[in-house]
Amino acid sequence: METEYTGKSAVPPPTAEAPPVAAAKGTFNYSVVEVALRVLLFAATLSSVVVMVTSKQTELVPVTSMPTVRVPIPAKFNHSPAFIYFIAALSVTGLYSIITILASVSVVLKPTYSKSFLLFFAFLDVVFVGIVASATGAAGAVAYIGLKGNSHVGWTKICGVYDKFCRHIGSSVALALFAAILLVLLSMMSAFTLYKKIRD
Amino acid sequence: METEYTGKSAVPPPTAEAPPVAAAKGTFNYSVVEVALRVLLFAATLSSVVVMVTSKQTELVPVTSMPTVRVPIPAKFNHSPAFIYFIAALSVTGLYSIITILASVSVVLKPTYSKSFLLFFAFLDVVFVGIVASATGAAGAVAYIGLKGNSHVGWTKICGVYDKFCRHIGSSVALALFAAILLVLLSMMSAFTLYKKIRD
Repeated sequence: METEYTGKSAVPPPTAEAPPVAAAKGTFNYSVVEVALRVLLFAATLSSVVVMVTSKQTELVPVTSMPTVRVPIPAKFNHSPAFIYFIAALSVTGLYSIITILASVSVVLKPTYSKSFLLFFAFLDVVFVGIVASATGAAGAVAYIGLKGNSHVGWTKICGVYDKFCRHIGSSVALALFAAILLVLLSMMSAFTLYKKIRD
Repeated sequence: METEYTGKSAVPPPTAEAPPVAAAKGTFNYSVVEVALRVLLFAATLSSVVVMVTSKQTELVPVTSMPTVRVPIPAKFNHSPAFIYFIAALSVTGLYSIITILASVSVVLKPTYSKSFLLFFAFLDVVFVGIVASATGAAGAVAYIGLKGNSHVGWTKICGVYDKFCRHIGSSVALALFAAILLVLLSMMSAFTLYKKIRD
C-alpha cells in the first residue's frame, strides 16, 4: 500500500506520483504502528502477570531453633504486598491495553474518530505509565533485597534458596519495565501525532 | 488582566466587550498555570530530596550475641540502593523542573515558541513521570518493609527503633508521589493544549 510511505511526505518528489490523498491520510500509518505497539503491550503485561503468578517454589529450609530439622516452606508472590500491587497494576494495564487495541483498530477503520481518541490515549497512557513504573519500582526494590539482602538492617537474601522463584520475579519485573517503555513510546506518539496535526 | 478569562471564551457574550485578541492568546492562560505547576514541582522534588537526605538517625541497638551490650548504629538513606535511586531520580527531576520553568516563562513572554515547547514538554514530562513513579514505588516498597517487616522471609521491621528515620522516609515518599501526580497533570495539560490548538 502506498500510504505506508506518507511518513516521508515532508519532502515530496517533484513528479505527480505522490497523491495528495496520501498526505491527508497521514495518521493512518501511525495508527497501524500504534495497534502493533498496543498488542505488544498486552503481550508484555499478560506474560509478566503469568510469570509472576507461576513463581511459587517450595524448599526444605532449616528451622532456626533446631538446625538439623528441615521443613518445607513455600515462597509465593503474595507474601509481599509489593508483588500483590504489581499483579494488580499489570492486570489493570492488560485490560486497558485490550480496550485501547479495540479503539486503535476503530481509528484505523474510521479515521474520523482519531482526534478525540488521541486525546483520550494521551491522557490515559500517562496515567498508566505512572502505574506500571511504580509497580516495576516496588517489585524491583523488593526483588533486589531478596537477591542481595541488606546487611545494615539484617535482612537476609533468599535467592540462594529460592532460585526458581527469583528467576520468575526477575523476568516478570523485566517484562513490566518493557511494558512501561512501550507506554512511554505510545504516549509520545500520541503527542507527536497531535503536534503533526497542528503543523500540517 | 482580562486575558485571565479567556478559558471561558467558548461562550462569548454578544456585546463587543470581549476582544478577539484574547481568544487568539488562548494559550497564555494555560502557560501561567503551567509555570505555577512547575514551580510547585520544583518545590516538591527539592523538599523530598532534603527530607530524605536529613533522615539520618543513630540509636543504641542491643547486639544479637550479647543482649546487655548496646552499640550506637546509624540508619541512613544510603544503606538502601532503592533510596539512593530515589535521591538520584528526584534530583534529576528537580533540575529538569528548573529548565522547564525557564522554558515556560519564555513561552509566557514570547508565545511564538509555544508549539515546539509543547511537544518537548509532552515528550519529556512522560519520561519523568516514569522516573519519579518508579522511584516512588521503589522507596515506598522498602519503606513498607521497614514499617511492617515481612514475617515470611524473616525481615524485621525497623521503624520501632528508628522512628525519626521512618518519618522522614515516609514524608519524602509522599512528596515524591505528589511530584509524580503534578507531572501527570502537566503532561495531560500539554496534550490538551495541543488538542485545543487543533480544535480551534
